[in-house]
Amino acid sequence: MLSEFDLIARYFTRPTRHTVLGVGDDAALLAPSPGSELVASTDMLVEGVHFFAGADPESLGHKALAVNLSDLAAMGATPRWAMLSLALPQVDEDWLAAFSRGFFALAEHYQVDLVGGDTTRGPRNICVQIMGEVRAGTALRRDGARVGDDVWVSGHLGDAAAAVAHQKGDLRLRGAGLAHCLVRLDRPQPRVALGRALGGIASAAIDVSDGLVADLGHICTRSGVAASVDFESLPCSAAFMPMRNHALVVWAILSGGDDYELCFTVPPGRAGEVEALSGRLGIALSRVGKIVAGSGVKVIDSGGRPMPVERGGFDHFH
Amino acid sequence: MLSEFDLIARYFTRPTRHTVLGVGDDAALLAPSPGSELVASTDMLVEGVHFFAGADPESLGHKALAVNLSDLAAMGATPRWAMLSLALPQVDEDWLAAFSRGFFALAEHYQVDLVGGDTTRGPRNICVQIMGEVRAGTALRRDGARVGDDVWVSGHLGDAAAAVAHQKGDLRLRGAGLAHCLVRLDRPQPRVALGRALGGIASAAIDVSDGLVADLGHICTRSGVAASVDFESLPCSAAFMPMRNHALVVWAILSGGDDYELCFTVPPGRAGEVEALSGRLGIALSRVGKIVAGSGVKVIDSGGRPMPVERGGFDHFH
Repeated sequence: MLSEFDLIARYFTRPTRHTVLGVGDDAALLAPSPGSELVASTDMLVEGVHFFAGADPESLGHKALAVNLSDLAAMGATPRWAMLSLALPQVDEDWLAAFSRGFFALAEHYQVDLVGGDTTRGPRNICVQIMGEVRAGTALRRDGARVGDDVWVSGHLGDAAAAVAHQKGDLRLRGAGLAHCLVRLDRPQPRVALGRALGGIASAAIDVSDGLVADLGHICTRSGVAASVDFESLPCSAAFMPMRNHALVVWAILSGGDDYELCFTVPPGRAGEVEALSGRLGIALSRVGKIVAGSGVKVIDSGGRPMPVERGGFDHFH
Repeated sequence: MLSEFDLIARYFTRPTRHTVLGVGDDAALLAPSPGSELVASTDMLVEGVHFFAGADPESLGHKALAVNLSDLAAMGATPRWAMLSLALPQVDEDWLAAFSRGFFALAEHYQVDLVGGDTTRGPRNICVQIMGEVRAGTALRRDGARVGDDVWVSGHLGDAAAAVAHQKGDLRLRGAGLAHCLVRLDRPQPRVALGRALGGIASAAIDVSDGLVADLGHICTRSGVAASVDFESLPCSAAFMPMRNHALVVWAILSGGDDYELCFTVPPGRAGEVEALSGRLGIALSRVGKIVAGSGVKVIDSGGRPMPVERGGFDHFH
């Protein structure tokens, strides 16, 4: 049977690009660029909570890294290094080969070096740490939104939550629309290029992992402001446009997590720069509301009435 | 019931000392010192594998950080920042209060800022990532041992493994000896000051987490050398000195993990500097063998005969 050391050597050791010392010592040695700040984040994915038992391991490898890259995107940072800790019920070489294929395909796309980690027996648990860089003082934080700023969202909202609702039998998607939502759930594309380009334009940013209302709420809390969002302006996939007023779709758009789009605020005078960015990067960017005085997030329907928001975002203990 | 956000705010948010932006955004912002390399490592502890169900949470909080600090000690680095991901079966405020007390007591001792992490429901799993700094080019690596170097070990070996053997009923410890071994198992003291002082003196270093023979074996493999260790010179606690030739005690000294002492190699001409360090830091430092040509680790008994070594170190999949 494959030992812990063989396992790391076979599946998780690849040449590094910009690392002094990678896997194989007590710790990795990294040389951050002069004038930069280090940007660090971590996410833990647990079987039965964040993914179903039996989930496709290649997608899991992708997603475990993608959700971390998304956090760096929301800071406007360039990802550089990752560490991966894995608890597995047993050594399953097919699972490991597929998981590492998914992980490294995304790592290579963003030139991220895997520089360390840990492997152990235990209930399946994937914990990734990501480290990157941003020019000192230019990170996109949550606390910079100002009254009068516009609220923007990238891509579409609700796809991933709609896919989960379909899997649970609560919503009926089909054909290309279903395929699209499943890819969005299983293989989210972190908005790394967008985040980097928004440095110096956006006043605040967050990635939509817990749902728009919850995540925009974090910007509001940290910035000491409120937000007013127009439901009609929220971008959603053609896949469920016809069901747009179905309660579950409304919920998916407003409070479904796992889309990993960016929500960001921009002074209104700079809207042209955001629009130019949309064209250059080929990513839909939608103006969906305003930052106003007060606290909390209000969503307004087409008749100008505030909409009830069912849930304040995903909480892993409830 | 306490939400994920309240939980983080209540138990895991403390003022930071040397951090641009800590807990509360998509990622932390850190400013490494100019001229330094970043040193990063991670360890995952799983209930039922690394600790018993029902283990004292304050000790667990200490140990989860200590094992990571030990990795930085083995690199000669100064620890600065940590991230903590926790999967818990349910929110238990008593458990969380005790765990965070143990974690922060050690963090404060070493002036380590907790700058991020994740919390989720799931089988109990603790994943800590540690980041620190070392002057560029001066890290203690595993690959620098040279033929002729002496092999040194800090403190005592086998205490933690003896405590586990006692808990399993395989070994009988009592009184002060038992208490000593239990503290060594539950509250290991990472050799941070020693590691930093060994920079520029030691040619290679590792922390003894998997057992001396296995860990010294890693130095040998990475350095392309062999080691010869004198069993009689290996330091062990007075607690089991009388049982020194009991097979289980021999095993604990040679292959018991979890001691978190440092094993390091030093050119023989610098032995005086190591001895001076021992006095200055108040840590026993023992010369236990030599680096020789070849591969692997041999242990020699008092009669000059090679001893059988039962197990090659702790492997979390076997």
